[in-house]
Amino acid sequence: MALDELSAKDFTVVGTRPLRPDGVDKVTGRARFGADAYAPGMLHGAILRSPHAHARIVRIDASAAESSPGVKAVITRKDFSSELEGDNWDILENVMAGEKVLYDGHALAAVAATSVFAARDALKLIEVEYEILPHVTDVDEAMKDGAPVIRDGAADASVPPGMHPNVVRYHENGHGDVDTGFAEADLVIGNSFRTEATHQGYIEPHACLAQLGPDGKGELWCCTQGHFVAGKICASLLGIDASQLRVTASEIGGGFGGKTTVFIEPVALALSRKTNRPVKVVMDRSEVFRATGPTSSASMDVKIGMRKDGTITAAEGVFRLQGGAFPGAPMEFSAMCGFAPYNLKHVRCEGWDVICNRPKQAAYRAPGSPMGAFAVESVIDELCNRLGLDPIDVRLKNASKEGTKAAFGPRFQRIGLVETLEAARDHPHYSAPLLEGQGRGVSCGFWFNHAGETAVSLALAEDGTVSLSVGTPDIGGSRASMCQMAAEALGIPYDKVRTTVADTATLGYNDVSHGSRVTYASGLATIKAAEDTIDKLCTRAAREWGIDREAVIWEDGCARPAGPNAGDFEPMSLAKIASRMGRTGGPIVGHYEATPEGAGVSFATHLVDAEVDKETGATKVVRYTVAQDAGKAIHPSYVEGQFQGGAAQGIGWALNEEYVYGEDGRLQNPGFLDYRIPVASDLPMIDTVIVEVPNPGHPYGVRGVGETSICPPLAAIANAVSNAAGVRLRELPMSPPRILEALEMAREDSG
Amino acid sequence: MALDELSAKDFTVVGTRPLRPDGVDKVTGRARFGADAYAPGMLHGAILRSPHAHARIVRIDASAAESSPGVKAVITRKDFSSELEGDNWDILENVMAGEKVLYDGHALAAVAATSVFAARDALKLIEVEYEILPHVTDVDEAMKDGAPVIRDGAADASVPPGMHPNVVRYHENGHGDVDTGFAEADLVIGNSFRTEATHQGYIEPHACLAQLGPDGKGELWCCTQGHFVAGKICASLLGIDASQLRVTASEIGGGFGGKTTVFIEPVALALSRKTNRPVKVVMDRSEVFRATGPTSSASMDVKIGMRKDGTITAAEGVFRLQGGAFPGAPMEFSAMCGFAPYNLKHVRCEGWDVICNRPKQAAYRAPGSPMGAFAVESVIDELCNRLGLDPIDVRLKNASKEGTKAAFGPRFQRIGLVETLEAARDHPHYSAPLLEGQGRGVSCGFWFNHAGETAVSLALAEDGTVSLSVGTPDIGGSRASMCQMAAEALGIPYDKVRTTVADTATLGYNDVSHGSRVTYASGLATIKAAEDTIDKLCTRAAREWGIDREAVIWEDGCARPAGPNAGDFEPMSLAKIASRMGRTGGPIVGHYEATPEGAGVSFATHLVDAEVDKETGATKVVRYTVAQDAGKAIHPSYVEGQFQGGAAQGIGWALNEEYVYGEDGRLQNPGFLDYRIPVASDLPMIDTVIVEVPNPGHPYGVRGVGETSICPPLAAIANAVSNAAGVRLRELPMSPPRILEALEMAREDSG
Repeated sequence: MALDELSAKDFTVVGTRPLRPDGVDKVTGRARFGADAYAPGMLHGAILRSPHAHARIVRIDASAAESSPGVKAVITRKDFSSELEGDNWDILENVMAGEKVLYDGHALAAVAATSVFAARDALKLIEVEYEILPHVTDVDEAMKDGAPVIRDGAADASVPPGMHPNVVRYHENGHGDVDTGFAEADLVIGNSFRTEATHQGYIEPHACLAQLGPDGKGELWCCTQGHFVAGKICASLLGIDASQLRVTASEIGGGFGGKTTVFIEPVALALSRKTNRPVKVVMDRSEVFRATGPTSSASMDVKIGMRKDGTITAAEGVFRLQGGAFPGAPMEFSAMCGFAPYNLKHVRCEGWDVICNRPKQAAYRAPGSPMGAFAVESVIDELCNRLGLDPIDVRLKNASKEGTKAAFGPRFQRIGLVETLEAARDHPHYSAPLLEGQGRGVSCGFWFNHAGETAVSLALAEDGTVSLSVGTPDIGGSRASMCQMAAEALGIPYDKVRTTVADTATLGYNDVSHGSRVTYASGLATIKAAEDTIDKLCTRAAREWGIDREAVIWEDGCARPAGPNAGDFEPMSLAKIASRMGRTGGPIVGHYEATPEGAGVSFATHLVDAEVDKETGATKVVRYTVAQDAGKAIHPSYVEGQFQGGAAQGIGWALNEEYVYGEDGRLQNPGFLDYRIPVASDLPMIDTVIVEVPNPGHPYGVRGVGETSICPPLAAIANAVSNAAGVRLRELPMSPPRILEALEMAREDSG
Repeated sequence: MALDELSAKDFTVVGTRPLRPDGVDKVTGRARFGADAYAPGMLHGAILRSPHAHARIVRIDASAAESSPGVKAVITRKDFSSELEGDNWDILENVMAGEKVLYDGHALAAVAATSVFAARDALKLIEVEYEILPHVTDVDEAMKDGAPVIRDGAADASVPPGMHPNVVRYHENGHGDVDTGFAEADLVIGNSFRTEATHQGYIEPHACLAQLGPDGKGELWCCTQGHFVAGKICASLLGIDASQLRVTASEIGGGFGGKTTVFIEPVALALSRKTNRPVKVVMDRSEVFRATGPTSSASMDVKIGMRKDGTITAAEGVFRLQGGAFPGAPMEFSAMCGFAPYNLKHVRCEGWDVICNRPKQAAYRAPGSPMGAFAVESVIDELCNRLGLDPIDVRLKNASKEGTKAAFGPRFQRIGLVETLEAARDHPHYSAPLLEGQGRGVSCGFWFNHAGETAVSLALAEDGTVSLSVGTPDIGGSRASMCQMAAEALGIPYDKVRTTVADTATLGYNDVSHGSRVTYASGLATIKAAEDTIDKLCTRAAREWGIDREAVIWEDGCARPAGPNAGDFEPMSLAKIASRMGRTGGPIVGHYEATPEGAGVSFATHLVDAEVDKETGATKVVRYTVAQDAGKAIHPSYVEGQFQGGAAQGIGWALNEEYVYGEDGRLQNPGFLDYRIPVASDLPMIDTVIVEVPNPGHPYGVRGVGETSICPPLAAIANAVSNAAGVRLRELPMSPPRILEALEMAREDSG
């Protein structure tokens, strides 16, 4: 559909705010999360974890544990496939250490027993002899000469010679010539920035129930963002066929990217195979912190040149991300996203992937983008301050638009960055006066949208109601939006559709619920499956009327004769055709399977007012406004929820959250008392403005919205805090001690 | 495919006997049957049942029960939809009585409580005031003048005037003129026959776990032969949308037709809706006997005329079947099947559907056919005896063949009755000498095959293995045969396919596993879905090779360039194409949804040797041989198992099983101690001969085999017993007292 047609499209169900179908389940406690799974005769698993940041495993003696009361099996690395390489080897190595433990919390053995208590008690009886090795947990320290080498030969061919072996991947992008660009600037500012690792903080710890028989057939119930991927990986780690392992996704208590891989699932399966009993494994919170994937910590240098009129002449960034003991830190996304909001003639980015003795990072909402934006948007703010320019005017002047060539290569299609900047500028927030001690910050942010493999089926019941099967776990209300899109496409009421997340045995392969792809890709597939259904409905009507299929159209939920036949027959509703489907050819089902194209990138502009108490260093966010391009908001409440959720998580990341490692390499704050995520009283009401610039690649104009909202907050808050404190904060979190330290240093500098 | 091609087809996987995929699950206890379902916080339900055969419900006072410890809810009829009519009203009336209880065991209230014990205790506290009404439980008594009328106005328009109101449906078929035919006969024999109701005797009692919220969204796990139908009916009885109720079929411990409808499922759902908690209901054995659906009892008159050379000149039958308190006794199937093996110029059948104060009958393996065959094949045996003719020769002389017009209308396509008769005649059994006191019986039997609505999906995993989703619960090893057909069609090994019975939310509508339809219809759909998959695989290969789709063929599990391109490219295996599917267009899935045509009817001939102890009346079946046309045996072991299972059930039905009602209308033997099904020591080894006359309507020639095997046994055993005892037995079961009585009467007659 052309863009102007899309903008003018008159929706009936899309854009409304119906009750979510999983609402009653969740508020009444009926919803079944990972830990609610049960099987007759099931055992309970517990996992032994390294207390050392880096050590060679000399010997594991499980004999005492094996004979402990209630214990049915103890497993170690040898109970998994020995034929892996590449990514799957890395995943297995993280799931169950082989020769070395690589971080505090790294799993190295597991027990299945008749109770959780018996299993945990038995862990204490497993004797492990370690040869302790030197460790490093800081990204900058890890690259220094003499830093312990985490894994020899882990670096791939992308890494230029001469780098420390802990730098394992390298990325470059850009265009133009930055030296020429900097020479054209009136002011060039370059600074260094650091962010700490943070955890997604999902409410529900990882939990699963696994069953795997000696015949290689298994079942897995788990809370995951991607049961197809989880199944594929587990099958590989266990050395069984993917189709023989049926995986069902439970309800999920948050993921934010952190549940896109496996941790306990292969362990539970291996325990089940060894005991021939179902085995349940549930992490506690400290295991979640110590041994699942937080985001990367980062060390970044960004330099930007600007003319007095606000034109950016050149930009350069080096983004060094620490992703734990395995390759995969999303430094290329920092390098792609940081400068994406700007139309730059000269730009150059580098990304370094650095390994450390920490848990392997996992995706966390727009992985890599928030820290990149933090560095870039902080420098732009400094430039605006120094040149006396309005930060929104400057951003508008340099904003990426349709046709802008991004630093990472492609030219943007129609995008809505300018519209979000204008919405922010025109919002009452931007002109509201600030009180004493308050500062205002602005930042833009960018995330691309990933489509991925997608399969959807849509089946009719005889009563004219619809079962929609999708393969993307619902992490943000997607069942509601799928129902809406199906209802819209078919022309029936919202509540006549039920959307189910199908298990891996009953639907084609589906990528993970990540990359802000669900409403985009599963939504597109839903609309296409509905169109396939409509084609079949029209065919039945045509056959009944004895006219050509082409002479039947679908309108307002009915097949209608068109053209010369119009008016010859009464329209036939979906319900009427469905009621007779058994006698007119059998079940009516629409399908769509593809890796869709046309992903819709999304930009946002955030406005933040912060107040800093210069005596205590405590910061309060007093006002927050998000303006983001959603393309088309299918269910505006959930879009607003995504906007607010990203901002809330960004506030935590910016102000308080951090992984604190001791000298001994152990995580010192693996719990919500010491790892401080924002609670309700820490947050202001977060205002939202939904900008709708349709994505021409989606039938209803949808863009991915879930991740972009966490890209601007770090910078927007840092800009607000810096403006309030009168001193530039370049390291996160901006916790009270760090703010006091910055104020102190500023006093020393000026004194 | 033409028949001769089908006969010559060279199969690789089909026709072999691989291990069944559910084997390990079942022998290790890992398989999850209905009662294994569990949900956090679930309650237990118990059902109050009438002790009276016929009574008006004056008053139900549940107040004491409601305040009993642990009780969360009591429900009665008013907790179900009040807007039903027709079949669904009948089903509801059977599930939960309204104004009257109609049989001993009829449900009229139910309790949900925190334990089974609390629920059962509370049942005793429900006060019911009954107005007891006269009752009738015998089919012949129910039609007599003055018999109590079970339900006024229950008869439909098919019933001729003047019949008793308990005759509720009437059926007629035939052709020619029987009087002319009888006049041409040298001998005409007409006799009356009776059979008792028997129960399917499945090992697993009905069990389910239901969850239904105030939002009208529900989940149901149950042991059923048809979860789609169960879901549809339950939704209707509860007044909710079919798509909002997701039904998952558990493993099933036998069904034989008895699990094609609902009994406890709507009760569990109503209890769940009232308590907003999951509710589990499990029947005990006495509930299974008293309140699920046994087969009909029958009273039949059959008259056949024969010439001295064995030619049948005319046949006539009246089949009166008692189906409990509701319409639906399968009298039309008795009338259709009884004479189906014979090419008759003059034939006329009547069927009467009679209601009584007994539980509503349910399907039991070829419903109606065994009793019809019992009457018809007994008369043919009497004629052969009296005319001194060989019973197989006579049957061969009159056998239905391709082109024969059946009594019920259509002409047969290619069928294998003659081949089964020849196989029986040529089997060593038929010429083996009989010992003193033994008799030999022969009978033919017929069952048609029903296709029904069928939907199947077949999805590939990246490792080249296959997930096949079917919607027909596996009641006889069908997952194995589906794997075989998919593997055969795709050209891959058997163990690369896993077949799953998908739930109702994730597949198109599927009819019940009944009518011997599963291997036929889901098998056909599997082959078609595999062909759809192959088309997609070839398209991917063609795209990669840059040639037309039409220039690619599928052979031995690989896409190969054909015609002028042959040899230009290396063949691409399924696994290779699958491994790259994400990058070449997305998931690969094949589908098929239809109500297939071309069902393949099946005939069998059974040979039985029986020995009668004339002192005790005890009968022993000493040799048994089944010859049946399977069309094509996909997994011969399961075909043999079906042949043997039908014979074994027939032995029980013929010799010992019966519903015994007292004068008070109460069932006197609702348990396996008093209801005597055959145990291993009662049975001989049952020899089998698989005849394969391909069904031209199925790609691999499959016919329905599951039901035909129970059609001949009643008659074959009655003929053997009559020949051994020297007295004709015309009433089942031929239990010791009845045989002694017959011997006594024969002595009286001759003395």
